[in-house]
Amino acid sequence: MERDGPFIAVDWGTTNRRAWRIAPGGAVEEALADARGILEIPAGGFPGEVAFLRQRLGDLPVLMGGMIGSDRGWRAVPYVPCPADVSSIAAGIQWIDARTGIIPGIAQERRDAPDVMRGEEVQIIGALALGDLPRDALVCLPGTHAKWVRLVDGRIAGFATWMTGELYALIRDHSILAPQLAGEDGAAHGSDAGPGFAAGVVASGAGDPLGQMFRIRAAAVLGAPMADAPGFASGLLIGAEVRAAMALMQGEAPWLIGRGDLTARYAAAIAQVIGQAQDTRRVIDGDTAFRAGIGALLKEMS
Amino acid sequence: MERDGPFIAVDWGTTNRRAWRIAPGGAVEEALADARGILEIPAGGFPGEVAFLRQRLGDLPVLMGGMIGSDRGWRAVPYVPCPADVSSIAAGIQWIDARTGIIPGIAQERRDAPDVMRGEEVQIIGALALGDLPRDALVCLPGTHAKWVRLVDGRIAGFATWMTGELYALIRDHSILAPQLAGEDGAAHGSDAGPGFAAGVVASGAGDPLGQMFRIRAAAVLGAPMADAPGFASGLLIGAEVRAAMALMQGEAPWLIGRGDLTARYAAAIAQVIGQAQDTRRVIDGDTAFRAGIGALLKEMS
Repeated sequence: MERDGPFIAVDWGTTNRRAWRIAPGGAVEEALADARGILEIPAGGFPGEVAFLRQRLGDLPVLMGGMIGSDRGWRAVPYVPCPADVSSIAAGIQWIDARTGIIPGIAQERRDAPDVMRGEEVQIIGALALGDLPRDALVCLPGTHAKWVRLVDGRIAGFATWMTGELYALIRDHSILAPQLAGEDGAAHGSDAGPGFAAGVVASGAGDPLGQMFRIRAAAVLGAPMADAPGFASGLLIGAEVRAAMALMQGEAPWLIGRGDLTARYAAAIAQVIGQAQDTRRVIDGDTAFRAGIGALLKEMS
Repeated sequence: MERDGPFIAVDWGTTNRRAWRIAPGGAVEEALADARGILEIPAGGFPGEVAFLRQRLGDLPVLMGGMIGSDRGWRAVPYVPCPADVSSIAAGIQWIDARTGIIPGIAQERRDAPDVMRGEEVQIIGALALGDLPRDALVCLPGTHAKWVRLVDGRIAGFATWMTGELYALIRDHSILAPQLAGEDGAAHGSDAGPGFAAGVVASGAGDPLGQMFRIRAAAVLGAPMADAPGFASGLLIGAEVRAAMALMQGEAPWLIGRGDLTARYAAAIAQVIGQAQDTRRVIDGDTAFRAGIGALLKEMS
């Protein structure tokens, strides 16, 4: 494979897929995004899907990260253990053929705190390669399953997962609070944080987000509905996550990697919890980091 | 109406309904339980449903509690404010006709802690009438929306709601943890507590149940699945509720009213949290209390 030439980077998740043709210098030449997540692909369908990506984006090396490497994806690629870095992750790539690879996830095989990630490791490697992230840092990657990652000397030393995004969606879509939480956009935690978000982060300080949640329904039933119930619910859950993670990680303000709307919410919650504005230089775009991570892994192998 | 004669008590909830014919002395002469909760009854269907209950159980006075009095039920019966007691609740009963009544719920109209209940107030009044509950006590009523109630001199002085049962069901049925949580029975928190329950209660001590939940998936993915993941998840959520509620209520061990499987779980969690066995005299059967509450309300009006 031509490791220094153009390539296709694919972030292939459970419900969505994004792919980019990347020029040797790192520039994005063409992009594709659709809802062909791994759960949409029938058994045996992955070779055809990748042929389609090459048809659309070019007949180039393809390197894929995310749930594509899980037992529900194309091939279950064994996790690389913590501590992990660009070398160990590159060494764990499984090659379907000489120019079609799947990146391994990372496992934390601690009996008291077992954990796994798939995809976030690419973003972290990319942010490091871009020089956007110090080699020793606390990193938060918001999402359906938010990750908080401890970097030590450029290695992923340990991490923890919060199911915040998934829980928010469950409560919004299926709980008794659904009528009050309707009107959200489709994002994991909804659209821009409204006035309720800050109130939710404050309320999360009681250390009991699940005990505060029913207030949303009670207020509506009593004829005084909250002005911004979706924001309040989001603030409660994200606030609880931020407080717990920062306590676990000893209060250090984290770097944020992810989608802009989510990192903005987390930055607001973090600023509220630590009592000072989150440093905006500490917010890194997730897609940019992902593409850079794919490039760094290919370079590592050359 | 003959207030001291036999009557029909109906606990009419969202998804289920139970009804009993009660003899003047309080004995249950006949019982009925089905899935004709309020959401199953079409508009205008309630008179026919009550005629059916009388056909089955006797042509007697009918007094109903629970979600039947909500805006999704037969008639929206205004909440009685806190503090509330048997007199104020009896005075708030709405009579459809001279011998068909619906009990009001209770509202806590506090701006900082709005809350509502419908049905639990009947159980509390009943437990008081039976002499099973002191007039000054902390009472926990587990369920889909668990209530913790402060009784002062026989009055419901204040209360708080935890959505524990509903959240457990959402996570079990719809989350990424569903494969690990399958095999539960249909109860709100599952069947008898397995070995994982105590571990979940311990883990809830970290004050971050939502951050501990993903361990269930990680352990399974890493090939070392938890022996009792449903119990662990239940213990996490119930443990977090018990810790938060007892902190709020200043550490006092509560009385428990409810279904036997749920009160047993809560009693186990409480015993773990306070470090001593929960006094078994403090566990009161919810149906017995409900029936006694209906009787006490009818007596109050005679």
